[in-house]
Amino acid sequence: MPARNDDLHGSAPDKSDFALLLIDVINDLDFPEANRLLRFARPMARKILRLKERAKKAGVPVIYVNDNFGRWQSDFRRQVQHCLRAKSRGHEVVKLLQPEEDDYFVLKPKHSGFFSTTLETLLRYLGSKTLIITGIAGNFCVLFTANDAFMRDYDLIIPSDCTASNSSAENREALALMRKFLKADTRPSSKIRLPVGRKKRR
Amino acid sequence: MPARNDDLHGSAPDKSDFALLLIDVINDLDFPEANRLLRFARPMARKILRLKERAKKAGVPVIYVNDNFGRWQSDFRRQVQHCLRAKSRGHEVVKLLQPEEDDYFVLKPKHSGFFSTTLETLLRYLGSKTLIITGIAGNFCVLFTANDAFMRDYDLIIPSDCTASNSSAENREALALMRKFLKADTRPSSKIRLPVGRKKRR
Amino acid sequence: MPARNDDLHGSAPDKSDFALLLIDVINDLDFPEANRLLRFARPMARKILRLKERAKKAGVPVIYVNDNFGRWQSDFRRQVQHCLRAKSRGHEVVKLLQPEEDDYFVLKPKHSGFFSTTLETLLRYLGSKTLIITGIAGNFCVLFTANDAFMRDYDLIIPSDCTASNSSAENREALALMRKFLKADTRPSSKIRLPVGRKKRR
Amino acid sequence: MPARNDDLHGSAPDKSDFALLLIDVINDLDFPEANRLLRFARPMARKILRLKERAKKAGVPVIYVNDNFGRWQSDFRRQVQHCLRAKSRGHEVVKLLQPEEDDYFVLKPKHSGFFSTTLETLLRYLGSKTLIITGIAGNFCVLFTANDAFMRDYDLIIPSDCTASNSSAENREALALMRKFLKADTRPSSKIRLPVGRKKRR
Repeated sequence: MPARNDDLHGSAPDKSDFALLLIDVINDLDFPEANRLLRFARPMARKILRLKERAKKAGVPVIYVNDNFGRWQSDFRRQVQHCLRAKSRGHEVVKLLQPEEDDYFVLKPKHSGFFSTTLETLLRYLGSKTLIITGIAGNFCVLFTANDAFMRDYDLIIPSDCTASNSSAENREALALMRKFLKADTRPSSKIRLPVGRKKRR
Repeated sequence: MPARNDDLHGSAPDKSDFALLLIDVINDLDFPEANRLLRFARPMARKILRLKERAKKAGVPVIYVNDNFGRWQSDFRRQVQHCLRAKSRGHEVVKLLQPEEDDYFVLKPKHSGFFSTTLETLLRYLGSKTLIITGIAGNFCVLFTANDAFMRDYDLIIPSDCTASNSSAENREALALMRKFLKADTRPSSKIRLPVGRKKRR
Repeated sequence: MPARNDDLHGSAPDKSDFALLLIDVINDLDFPEANRLLRFARPMARKILRLKERAKKAGVPVIYVNDNFGRWQSDFRRQVQHCLRAKSRGHEVVKLLQPEEDDYFVLKPKHSGFFSTTLETLLRYLGSKTLIITGIAGNFCVLFTANDAFMRDYDLIIPSDCTASNSSAENREALALMRKFLKADTRPSSKIRLPVGRKKRR
Repeated sequence: MPARNDDLHGSAPDKSDFALLLIDVINDLDFPEANRLLRFARPMARKILRLKERAKKAGVPVIYVNDNFGRWQSDFRRQVQHCLRAKSRGHEVVKLLQPEEDDYFVLKPKHSGFFSTTLETLLRYLGSKTLIITGIAGNFCVLFTANDAFMRDYDLIIPSDCTASNSSAENREALALMRKFLKADTRPSSKIRLPVGRKKRR
């Protein structure tokens, strides 16, 4: 079936220098420390939503890079439904950030979005060189993903108001680390300049 | 979120020395050479179905490793529905081999099931050492997947009646290659001995 | 040590759209079927040598991608010496194709040059899009490497006179496979057009 | 050449549950912040040396995982010589930690020892489940390597006196991170219990 694979199966993804990654935002937050995280996750979600809206206007592809809760048999849309139930601690965040039809998604089995996933291949097809990384937790899955992106020579934007950790201090430390070692631009999301409506197709 | 990841997110997969892989069987066969392939794919699907039933009885996990037709935004279950429509050339094959609730699935962006996918991590968690590889095309995606499995030191069983290519000759050649270089056991599916109902959980 | 890594440690490799790969040519051919292979490996080595000379004139980087014979403790130059001893079956081939100071080398633990190696990162830094793959065996390590290159979207040139297998038939079949499925250009080496002395540095 | 590859080319590596990794210790420390690092690197090197001696007595394989200074054409032993010159800032460290004939080495192009290297395959052949990670810098290449090891489910020992960073505070923070998120055991090297002389061969 080679012919089908030239453009990743008959349907070339968009082309864009930038890509916006949302890490683990589809999350029932069903773990002990989640209450602490939740305090920071709600305002974060509002900031990510605004950034996502700007990204889509600018033709920047939006990629959900997410853990696979439950068994590996479930699919991503079912997981969204699961996390939207009222008794899911994460339901407000998930409601704000529900994936749309034209968003991409990448299932990750571990902490980094690049480990054992389709992300690198998808980004290659998108042609993206600069990654805007957002989501939770700032000092864990976001950090791991940023590390791996750096080793692959992506330029990194990690807006300080679009990640959340269990405490402000931990989030700040993670941002400082990424600024120092990964040369990440961590300005707040409102200060990020996106390309102007330059959706390019191949 | 480290605690959730110890067993791949709160839900340890089954443990099994064997795993059964179905390559690209969820397929609308919407490409030029598909008519030739279809002739071989129908009897193949019946053999795979029988093998899958035996595998499930024996507690051997079944993993659909499949291309992502259409855009990356779609999910696997939607793809199954798409391929089941009467006008899909592959609908008979897909109907026979519809994934069940407890089957695993791995989305692959390219030819090998190991390239840029979760397969290696899933197999590590399953603890599988022997892979039974089936599906289409025998001389392409099955062969690429088998090559990659061999480099990772899996033992390979590639039952001669459970793969299909565009011609019998091409399928035979691919099987000969895999027997010779990958030390694959290519006996027909009915001759494969599976473990006896040894479903183990951690 | 981030600053050192921007250009792969203080010393940017050359930039070139093309790269010439020599697979497993530094080889003592100390295995049972080697006598059959050797018959084809000698004329192959002379063709590769000429191609290598042309490549270097054209500024095309030359990369030895080679198994690590003996223990992993040994290094590549020591291995060259080992293979050059008169009692090494491969000594004529190795003598013709001795690596020079400015050739690159990549140690591979398995069959594909891309599996568990530095090759992909090196090629990214070289900026190469087209790989000329040569060496032994045409239907094994060359084929595995070509498969992996194809999945990474490199354009492939695999000159028919620059690979050798245990028999002409096997080599021809491998070339046919790579032409058909990997869209490889398999014209003889003398017909390959290389860029004209366009050594570019960053 | 499949037969040669069964045991990684005719020479099975040792088998050991533990492996000792030395990250970037063969280093000319020729970068601006190196003077600060050097203060901590000297005592670190003495601790690593003692640990290495204990490891070798216990049959624990020692793996140098090291950047490739200079061009990719150079080999590791030449690099050792380069770093041993008196004018190399790192010469004392390198002199203490010179690799021996039966040590393994892995060349890494980037920060993590697992990225684009042979390390994962080598560890699989060694059968190691627990990694003792040492070297420089504690908050950079050691941290990146530890992150990647954690995602691959290795148990981690990162002795607090066997890593060095540009400042004690940074080294402590990195150790705290690895203790918390990677569940690393960071006790000082003298408190680590190694297996008793259990060198096993296949």
